[in-house]
Amino acid sequence: MRTILIGLGTIGQSYCQLLENRKEDLLTNYGIDSKIVAVADSKGVAIDAKGIKISDILSVKKNNKSVSELSIGEKSKTSIDLLEAIDAELLVDATTTNIQDGEPSASLLESAMKTKKNIITANKGPLALAFSSVIEKAEYNNVVLKYSATVGGGTPVLEFGRKCLEADRILEMNAILNGTTNYILTNMADGMSFNDALNDAKQKGYVEADESLDLDGLDAAAKLVILANWIMGMKVSIPDMKLTGIRKRDSSDIKRDAWKKFAIKLIASCDKELKFEPKEISDNDPLCLMGTLNAISFTSEHSGTQTIIGRGAGGIETASSILRDLIDIRNEIVKI
Amino acid sequence: MRTILIGLGTIGQSYCQLLENRKEDLLTNYGIDSKIVAVADSKGVAIDAKGIKISDILSVKKNNKSVSELSIGEKSKTSIDLLEAIDAELLVDATTTNIQDGEPSASLLESAMKTKKNIITANKGPLALAFSSVIEKAEYNNVVLKYSATVGGGTPVLEFGRKCLEADRILEMNAILNGTTNYILTNMADGMSFNDALNDAKQKGYVEADESLDLDGLDAAAKLVILANWIMGMKVSIPDMKLTGIRKRDSSDIKRDAWKKFAIKLIASCDKELKFEPKEISDNDPLCLMGTLNAISFTSEHSGTQTIIGRGAGGIETASSILRDLIDIRNEIVKI
Repeated sequence: MRTILIGLGTIGQSYCQLLENRKEDLLTNYGIDSKIVAVADSKGVAIDAKGIKISDILSVKKNNKSVSELSIGEKSKTSIDLLEAIDAELLVDATTTNIQDGEPSASLLESAMKTKKNIITANKGPLALAFSSVIEKAEYNNVVLKYSATVGGGTPVLEFGRKCLEADRILEMNAILNGTTNYILTNMADGMSFNDALNDAKQKGYVEADESLDLDGLDAAAKLVILANWIMGMKVSIPDMKLTGIRKRDSSDIKRDAWKKFAIKLIASCDKELKFEPKEISDNDPLCLMGTLNAISFTSEHSGTQTIIGRGAGGIETASSILRDLIDIRNEIVKI
Repeated sequence: MRTILIGLGTIGQSYCQLLENRKEDLLTNYGIDSKIVAVADSKGVAIDAKGIKISDILSVKKNNKSVSELSIGEKSKTSIDLLEAIDAELLVDATTTNIQDGEPSASLLESAMKTKKNIITANKGPLALAFSSVIEKAEYNNVVLKYSATVGGGTPVLEFGRKCLEADRILEMNAILNGTTNYILTNMADGMSFNDALNDAKQKGYVEADESLDLDGLDAAAKLVILANWIMGMKVSIPDMKLTGIRKRDSSDIKRDAWKKFAIKLIASCDKELKFEPKEISDNDPLCLMGTLNAISFTSEHSGTQTIIGRGAGGIETASSILRDLIDIRNEIVKI
């Protein structure tokens, strides 16, 4: 499958690594021969209709340089130009999430649809801001759009909700959707101050460059909006949510009380409305989770509550979600 | 779909209740018109080619009587006779699990296959004792065999493992597969003696009539064997497992040590071999779960570890798994 890959941060590079490691496996077991015919990072592009050597992409990035250094194709092109000019069956969008206007992802998706390319996106922006309209445009243009990587990192949350519970009606979701704030809260529960806990999380590389994505709840909100639209059929977007972040919380609010057997957790919830606020969670509840994990509990009409837990971030994990989407797209194309 | 339902304990009755409650929904949304044309409990049978009124079945069971009291069809027939004599597309096997020889389920499955009836079974016995041979026979006879209800109650564990992680290779599973022993261990961790904890679990109705299924680990072992065969493609059966139950454990072994931040849990695990033994689980691990819940962690090659948690038992939950299988079978039949 001829692929245009945009974005070579941790996720984009991990995806390249996975394609390289699983080359034989993908071909033998799934019939997938994935060629990257064009690639873009924030500083430039590389183009080769015969397929760019993945080891070249990885080695140029390892040296903190741009793929434009590879000097293949017209260096003057932008990533949007790539979509318009290059023959390919697939766009893999590994650009950075922007919850304000969804760019650059929104324009990339639009161009890919117009030029009839299937899409895998790891970017939460466009879907969190205008889910229905993005989905409708993909359908109208008859392209497959997959976005497993937007929620849950490597944990197949969206597939679980739809495939596994399709015989039942999901009434409610409650979730820890941001590992960073959960890590901070876990440390505060053990008595650390908010500032110390934040600094510790920063040192460990858990905090996004734009820290408001984590601390004000925007990252979790974006994931909840995608879940609510996709799994519960709601028509909501970020502004519909009531957000309460964790800035300026006092560790005395948060401190775990061993006698009371609960902990304070930032819970993204959705029944009739979407909320994101601190709640007391009993220590018998699977959502009473320590550390950086994410957890989503689905409560359905007949089969009770099921919780799925996994790392919600991480380059290689998120890249494995993109690969899962790639295999799905391949299967859908074969069916047609 | 004309159905023969064998077994009217909690699960069989809950299934009837679900069919009744979701009658409209099943017809409108899934195109399923499920008729029970024959039913058997441990004391007798009822037969009606036009479909037995489900409210009649439920009311006779509510009064602790046998369906033979309904006096429809030949009362002298056995459940095996039903499979041989009655025209139907589906057997729903809700009989009680027997890990010694798999009966009566094994013979019911055999008869259903010979007479080309699709099968949904909630009985762990035949699959835990001879997984490959049961699956092969179903394929040879060209019938669909579904068994979601055998593992995880209402939690779609088998579907999660296969559908959601099919793009990756599962290397390892670690699980709490028996809610009863986990409940006992939770109480022992809080200082209760084994006998007191067992009595408490009995009073709450958590312990199987044959308590060795819970206490000696046979119930958990059966589930692990089914998981290992189905998800990891292993060829194993119950005798291949090393079992360590929780009888005669001392609560001083088990007592939760708040300073050490771990708890002792009975973990069913599978990498290259199958084991079921007590292990120290860190309180940051989702498997460090209190109460009656079940949890299964799948570790795959690329996408990390994912854990799914839910009630592993319960009539209505397990019945909802049977219904999920019913919808799957309906979809498979439509495809053909």
